[in-house]
Amino acid sequence: MKSHIKITYCTQCQWLLRATWMSQELLTTFKDDIDALTLIPGTGGIFEVYANDEKIWSRKEMNGFPEITKLKQLVRDVIAPNKSLGHIDRKHS
Amino acid sequence: MKSHIKITYCTQCQWLLRATWMSQELLTTFKDDIDALTLIPGTGGIFEVYANDEKIWSRKEMNGFPEITKLKQLVRDVIAPNKSLGHIDRKHS
Repeated sequence: MKSHIKITYCTQCQWLLRATWMSQELLTTFKDDIDALTLIPGTGGIFEVYANDEKIWSRKEMNGFPEITKLKQLVRDVIAPNKSLGHIDRKHS
Repeated sequence: MKSHIKITYCTQCQWLLRATWMSQELLTTFKDDIDALTLIPGTGGIFEVYANDEKIWSRKEMNGFPEITKLKQLVRDVIAPNKSLGHIDRKHS
């Protein structure tokens, strides 16, 4: 069963480019693991990432934006727990 | 009622960047009209765009990729028929 990623971003804060950049990174790294990635415009400073409906990042709760390698680990842990991220894992182990 | 856009693109053909570029254009022009935009990896040369589940572009059926102003008109005609696209409409009327 493949997976669905959702990225909600604040349009008032001009975070579309940040959200689409992260979508490019995730859809490249998890090319064979992601079934669909949905971008959802929001307001009020929202920036959240969901993997299979599990919230894995919230700008408000985690005080900022995810570093991309950290985000990839969080996504991997939900949608492809056995997938190695190569150097990312070695650097952070 | 807002709208849902879907872009299906071929990963074998490396069309992720083309698909995410178009998503940035659509989510900018239709910032207040689109509820969600979903990117769907596919194979075999697929490149299709749906607006509220209506197929508005197919690379195979239309022999190529949409010119961005044309794509915006096609999206507008489905999700916000009364929305003016300014110079785009004047140039193409």
